[in-house]
Amino acid sequence: MATTDIQQFAHSSPTEVRAAIRQKLFNAPTTGVAQGYMQVSPIIIPSRFAADFKQFCHTNDKPFPLAGISAQGNSKLPFLGKDIDVKYDLGHYHIYRNGQFSGEVSSLDSIWRDDWVTFTVGCSFSFEDILQSQHIPIRHQQEGKNVPMYNTDIPLHPVGVFGGNMVVSMRPFSTSDAIQAIAITSRYPISHGAPVHMGDPKQIGIHTLDKPDYGDSVHIQSNEIPLFWACGVTILPVMQRAKLPIAIVQKPGYMLVTDILLQSQSTERF
Amino acid sequence: MATTDIQQFAHSSPTEVRAAIRQKLFNAPTTGVAQGYMQVSPIIIPSRFAADFKQFCHTNDKPFPLAGISAQGNSKLPFLGKDIDVKYDLGHYHIYRNGQFSGEVSSLDSIWRDDWVTFTVGCSFSFEDILQSQHIPIRHQQEGKNVPMYNTDIPLHPVGVFGGNMVVSMRPFSTSDAIQAIAITSRYPISHGAPVHMGDPKQIGIHTLDKPDYGDSVHIQSNEIPLFWACGVTILPVMQRAKLPIAIVQKPGYMLVTDILLQSQSTERF
Repeated sequence: MATTDIQQFAHSSPTEVRAAIRQKLFNAPTTGVAQGYMQVSPIIIPSRFAADFKQFCHTNDKPFPLAGISAQGNSKLPFLGKDIDVKYDLGHYHIYRNGQFSGEVSSLDSIWRDDWVTFTVGCSFSFEDILQSQHIPIRHQQEGKNVPMYNTDIPLHPVGVFGGNMVVSMRPFSTSDAIQAIAITSRYPISHGAPVHMGDPKQIGIHTLDKPDYGDSVHIQSNEIPLFWACGVTILPVMQRAKLPIAIVQKPGYMLVTDILLQSQSTERF
Repeated sequence: MATTDIQQFAHSSPTEVRAAIRQKLFNAPTTGVAQGYMQVSPIIIPSRFAADFKQFCHTNDKPFPLAGISAQGNSKLPFLGKDIDVKYDLGHYHIYRNGQFSGEVSSLDSIWRDDWVTFTVGCSFSFEDILQSQHIPIRHQQEGKNVPMYNTDIPLHPVGVFGGNMVVSMRPFSTSDAIQAIAITSRYPISHGAPVHMGDPKQIGIHTLDKPDYGDSVHIQSNEIPLFWACGVTILPVMQRAKLPIAIVQKPGYMLVTDILLQSQSTERF
C-alpha cells in the first residue's frame, strides 16, 4: 500500500503531493515522492525559545541544517514554496509536552498558537534520491526498511536548554560506493552534508549495529563500511532534555515536501 | 637547502618561480611553491601517438586529468600561462626511449623536434595545499619525505599501445580527516579528484604499505585509515609498456608551475 502510494507520487509535483496529503489521499512516509525536491522536518516551539534554538541550530548545523524560520505565529512558510502551511501540509504531527510524547494529530488547525515559531531543517531523504540516481544502492531501501539510527556519544554544542548527544543514521556501502557517497553528500550541507563518521561504530559510542535505537537494523556485508550521518532525529533527545512546555515535530518519515529543487541547494558548480 | 628554496618561493608568483627555474636559481621539487596555483606534469610524445594518447587520457581521467594539449611542434603552452615554454620551464626532464629511461636534461632546447606534442595533466601537489589550508596534516610532509606510491592491480582502459595498471599515492588520516579529505579532493577532478580506494591495500593488489614502489614509506597510526589516489606516476609503467621511440616527462616532483589559480578549477560553488 505504502509502496503503491510512493510510486504513484514519485514524479508528482510538490503541490500535488501536498494537496493529496491535505485531502488524506496520500498517507505514507514521504521518502521517494516528488523526486528532486527538498523535504524538510518542521520543529515548532514557543517563540520565547526561538532565539536560543536558532543559535543551537547554527552551532550544530550537521544535525540541524536550517532551511528557514517562520514569522512568529505565522504557519505559512513562503520561503519553502507557494501556499505551504505547516498546519496542514504534514500527514502526522507528534506533540511533546515537558519533554514527553503526548500524542499525534493529523492537523494543527485546532491547536495552533500565535506565539509558535516553525524551524525547518533539511533531511537525508533528499540525498538518498541523489545517491540512487548515481546507482549507489541504499541498503534499507533495498530491504524495504526504515533507515537504522543510533544514539552516540558525540556531544552537541549546548545553547540554553538545548543540548545532548547526536543521533546518527547509518548506511553501509562498498568501499568505492562509500567514497562516492562521501563526495556527493558533502555537496549538500542542507541534507546533513558529509558523514560525521565511518567504520568502527564504537568510536562514536555505538556498541552494536544490530540494535538501532530508532528505525530498523539492516544487513552489512563483510566487505562493506558503515557510514554515519548526523540525523534530524537528534531533535527527540534534545526535546526530551529541554522539557519545553510544548514542541511539535513530524511523525518520523512523514516530511514536509517543499518547492525547492534540491539541486539548487548543492554547493556543486555545473 | 630544498626547504629554504621552497619557503623562499612559497608566495612567489608563478612567473617568478618559472624565471628562477630558467635561471637555475631554483632547483628543488616544486611542492609548496607559488601556493594557490595549479602545477602540472608535462608528457611529451611524437604527434603520431597523440590521438591515441588523448583518448587514453580521457578514458583514464583519474590518473591523467588533462589540463590541455599543445599545438604540434609548439613548445609554448598559452592555455596554462603567459610565456610558458615547456622547453625551459622545468628544472629537469627525464627522457625515455623505447620504454627505457635514457637520461636527464635540464632543457629541451637542443633536442626539440617539430613533431612533438605536449600533454599536461594535473597533479596532487595542488590538493595537498588545500588540505593543509583546512588544517588536515599530510604525513609525508610532516616526515619530510616524498609521498609513498604503489603499483596496483587496478587496470587502465587500454587505447592503442597505451595501457597497464594504475599507480596510486597513499596518505593516512584520522577518520574525520579522511572524510574531509575525500570531500575536498572530490571537488578537484583536475588534481585526480576523490581517492580511488581506502582501507585494506590488498583489495587493490598492494601487499604491504611498508615498501612503496616509488617515493618513501610513512608511519601509519593504528587509528588511521590510508586513502589511495590515482597518481600521475602511472605514466612510467604506461610508457615502459608502450615503448614509444621517445617520450619526455618531468623528473618526479619537479613540476610545471602554471598561472592557473587552482580555485578556478574547483567544482565548488562559492
